[in-house]
Amino acid sequence: MTSLRRYLPLLDWGRTYNRTAFSNDMIAAVIVTIMLIPQSLAYALLAGLPPEAGIYASIAPIILYAVFGTSRALAVGPVAVVSLLTASAIGQVAEQGTAGYAVAALTLAFLSGVFLVLMGVLRLGFLANFLSHPVIAGFITASGILIATSQLKHILGVSAHGHTLPEMLGSMLSNLAEINWITLVIGVLATAFLFWVRKGLKPLLRRMGASPLVADILTKAGPVAAVVATTLAVWGFGLAEQGVKIVGAVPQSLPPLTLPGFSPDLIGALLMPAILISVIGFVESVSVAQTLAAKKRQRIDPDQELIGLGAANLGAAFTGGYPVTGGFARSVVNFDAGAETPAAGAFTAVGLAIAAVALTPLVYFLPTATLAATIIVAVLSLVDLSILKKTWGYSRADFTAVAVTILLTLTMGVEVGVASGVAISVLLHLYKTSRPHVAEVGLVPGTQHFRNIHRHQVATNPRLLSLRVDESLYFANARFLEDLIQARVVEGSDIRDVVLIFSAVNAVDYSALESLEAINQRLGDLGVGFHLTEVKGPVMDRLKRSHFVDDLNGRVFLSQYDAWLHFLARPPEGSAEEPPLVR
Amino acid sequence: MTSLRRYLPLLDWGRTYNRTAFSNDMIAAVIVTIMLIPQSLAYALLAGLPPEAGIYASIAPIILYAVFGTSRALAVGPVAVVSLLTASAIGQVAEQGTAGYAVAALTLAFLSGVFLVLMGVLRLGFLANFLSHPVIAGFITASGILIATSQLKHILGVSAHGHTLPEMLGSMLSNLAEINWITLVIGVLATAFLFWVRKGLKPLLRRMGASPLVADILTKAGPVAAVVATTLAVWGFGLAEQGVKIVGAVPQSLPPLTLPGFSPDLIGALLMPAILISVIGFVESVSVAQTLAAKKRQRIDPDQELIGLGAANLGAAFTGGYPVTGGFARSVVNFDAGAETPAAGAFTAVGLAIAAVALTPLVYFLPTATLAATIIVAVLSLVDLSILKKTWGYSRADFTAVAVTILLTLTMGVEVGVASGVAISVLLHLYKTSRPHVAEVGLVPGTQHFRNIHRHQVATNPRLLSLRVDESLYFANARFLEDLIQARVVEGSDIRDVVLIFSAVNAVDYSALESLEAINQRLGDLGVGFHLTEVKGPVMDRLKRSHFVDDLNGRVFLSQYDAWLHFLARPPEGSAEEPPLVR
Repeated sequence: MTSLRRYLPLLDWGRTYNRTAFSNDMIAAVIVTIMLIPQSLAYALLAGLPPEAGIYASIAPIILYAVFGTSRALAVGPVAVVSLLTASAIGQVAEQGTAGYAVAALTLAFLSGVFLVLMGVLRLGFLANFLSHPVIAGFITASGILIATSQLKHILGVSAHGHTLPEMLGSMLSNLAEINWITLVIGVLATAFLFWVRKGLKPLLRRMGASPLVADILTKAGPVAAVVATTLAVWGFGLAEQGVKIVGAVPQSLPPLTLPGFSPDLIGALLMPAILISVIGFVESVSVAQTLAAKKRQRIDPDQELIGLGAANLGAAFTGGYPVTGGFARSVVNFDAGAETPAAGAFTAVGLAIAAVALTPLVYFLPTATLAATIIVAVLSLVDLSILKKTWGYSRADFTAVAVTILLTLTMGVEVGVASGVAISVLLHLYKTSRPHVAEVGLVPGTQHFRNIHRHQVATNPRLLSLRVDESLYFANARFLEDLIQARVVEGSDIRDVVLIFSAVNAVDYSALESLEAINQRLGDLGVGFHLTEVKGPVMDRLKRSHFVDDLNGRVFLSQYDAWLHFLARPPEGSAEEPPLVR
Repeated sequence: MTSLRRYLPLLDWGRTYNRTAFSNDMIAAVIVTIMLIPQSLAYALLAGLPPEAGIYASIAPIILYAVFGTSRALAVGPVAVVSLLTASAIGQVAEQGTAGYAVAALTLAFLSGVFLVLMGVLRLGFLANFLSHPVIAGFITASGILIATSQLKHILGVSAHGHTLPEMLGSMLSNLAEINWITLVIGVLATAFLFWVRKGLKPLLRRMGASPLVADILTKAGPVAAVVATTLAVWGFGLAEQGVKIVGAVPQSLPPLTLPGFSPDLIGALLMPAILISVIGFVESVSVAQTLAAKKRQRIDPDQELIGLGAANLGAAFTGGYPVTGGFARSVVNFDAGAETPAAGAFTAVGLAIAAVALTPLVYFLPTATLAATIIVAVLSLVDLSILKKTWGYSRADFTAVAVTILLTLTMGVEVGVASGVAISVLLHLYKTSRPHVAEVGLVPGTQHFRNIHRHQVATNPRLLSLRVDESLYFANARFLEDLIQARVVEGSDIRDVVLIFSAVNAVDYSALESLEAINQRLGDLGVGFHLTEVKGPVMDRLKRSHFVDDLNGRVFLSQYDAWLHFLARPPEGSAEEPPLVR
């Protein structure tokens, strides 16, 4: 039963569902539906799919997420970045506009759904953590630029292709002669209007005395206004005959039952993109869900989120959709509009189903330039180059990861960009930890504290080399420590004992164990003692599983002060005792 | 001048070279030469090359390493694992026995040389540290098994091919009907003899009163004895006509000047294998050089070693050789025989050059089965499955890395094996650090120390959550910390303040900074304070580059005890003060 409740969060919130929750969810659903109709059409366009695919992708997935997901406010459906990734992935296996293209989109959603559910069942949600924040930020920013650029062709009314910035710009420039001036006017006006709605309308309405809720609904309805105005203009003036591209006939139906393609070639070609889409989508979705949950002291379960998103994608695969995830904009709108439970999502799905059946004929004359304007205005809010400045100030390694991700995403495409970002952030992390900070320490006079001899006035003993290692020891830094100790002992021929202070060593892996054994062996060959101090409990437990402590050519002291006293008390062999120096 | 001396270590040891060093180097050179003649022929066979390639690969490379290398005892030339890697790499671009095969070997050596020199000039030697000890141990063991298996066909006198264990065994079994019984007898006898020489001869000679040096030389000459005996047997009894495969005509000449192939296809196909060979060869060579240097309190410079090995490989590429590196067996023999400077290597090169000119006709009737026996006996000392047992006892993560490396090297080939080993050890390391140990701590009564509440009798304050994070914070564990704190605060609704103890946090990257900001934001929304204690200097310097400390919804305390006293003194809001509990 508990296990059933784990997999069906619906059983949790469903039991306490009441009239207040219902009416709050209903209001939120109306607002979100109004916002989603033009957005869904636009994202389908971005993915290279027929407009209805965007609406279908918002119906079954929302309901399935409501059953399996753990976030109370997350709104699932097509989002900009995943639509771009979809276009890029499918563009490699099929021509846009062909039946194969739509089938490939279903397969992509199917593979993505299977992968997400598997990750969830195997509880592998933590893998998403390997996408560092700067890499995600860089990737989202670069994707925003790519998406906005890809939509320029609809505003200009020219044809263009390509999945990287140079390809798209080059292809657009070479076709610039095809420019359709009426389309350009519609596109520019729609874009300017939508920017104004986003920035200027809400304050204006508030100044005019509208309540926050009304101001909000009217602002969210901005794209609908643009859609209605431009559709009427195209219809009224017969602009479609002037070469203005329109959406055209959209089937008037509930989401159809569809079957993804299962040919091995198709699956082989789409597997890696599906994994990438799943991981990116999951990371985006979980961040949103976590942020919204925290505001109400609620929790989400990332592994169950994987199952919820997986179910949503499987739903998309069998109902004419394409890959979906939890979107930032729609979820925030849903939350702000007062959604209390996932039922709000289900009501949104009903709203969209009604739209799919009743409203699709109305968008026949809708110019694609308007949809492109909707996309451009939406994605430009994703573009945030300030991450470059912020990381530059904080850490050059993080800056490098962002810069590489942005540059490669723009010039080599989304897959290469994000893969390189992950690889470079892992490598830079390993590089940093492969050269740990190691301080030679001495006693602060009158205390039991030891500090870096280069920063403080401390007492040292020329026969004793005390090194504090400020990093866990593992394969990438094991040899560094070997080299460092070897170098110090070769330089300082007075040294009779080496002490390693392990207070900041949280782990010692097998490579580091072998390096410690090698250090012990080499120091032993030279007649130099080798000692450890301040070893943490778990690290000591681990070391005791090997022969290292038994074979140690020295002692393990509880504290560095104990070690200091021990070597102070013991007169050095073959020389008159010298007092410790203060330096 | 110092920079010239950096790149030419010869200028260092050359200035103090004297008669004693000369005679010690000379003795070592004679012993190593005797050992190398059969070994060089055998490793060329293993690499699929004509036997003389093994001798040529030992001449120019040794001299070039003597000029550029930093180890006093390292002996450079063909080694078993690199020969195997060479066979595996070239087998994919050319047929064995063709001219293209030999040219590909030159190209491989050339690419490897260029890559090593580049790594050295760019001081990238640390990259080799990403091969963890268990991965190297597993790879060497699996390679030993692969090499021994690959030589069985010469012992059986059957034809076989393949680069993985199942391929080789399958192909040998299906050709078992071709078996040549005379070859089998020669092969088995030679193998048994060589094992006996290795294990039993030296103790026997010592018991018979031989000096250690004489016993050592005679033992090292064992393979020469096997070569002489089986060659005489084949010649005397005319066994070559009975189908016993022999070495045949070997050109009688100094190393020829040769030119590697530079076609883009060839370079493209061999680039990755060349990088792999370089890295594996470098790691093997540096370990040997470091071990030997430490015994005499000398040092080697890993970056200069890259240049030395790179020069050696470039030398091999232009003198009819194939990829080389510093070998374990030959270097230890060189060191034990008393080599004092790299001049010993130069003298060995002269010895081998004489052999190449004068002795090659003598090996005409040498059966390949004898060379195979030499290889089998040499590589079985590399096979050490005890690494599985040792890592199992010490750490499951390290065990997994070894097991995967061995299994995949045997079944999928050397490239896949070592690449998977590296990938899995990096992933396991990231996984371990992605779920850091976080302890809730309380005050040990009567002290200023704080300990884990689950392990010790400590005082706690129900309004204060004190967590000690035992790991540096970075992208892979940033979200883990977010989740953990969120979960604790949702559970413990009495909590008014959260304190993170940073004593074991050696670094905070940008992702972790953003997570700390998110935690701060969320705790702020809930009216919970967020505080840090015992932040290290470098970490604090870093945090101060951001707004985090200014925006902190709480304070940074120098010590946890200060924080404890602060919250003890402050009466909790809206409730009667309760004394801290001892639990």
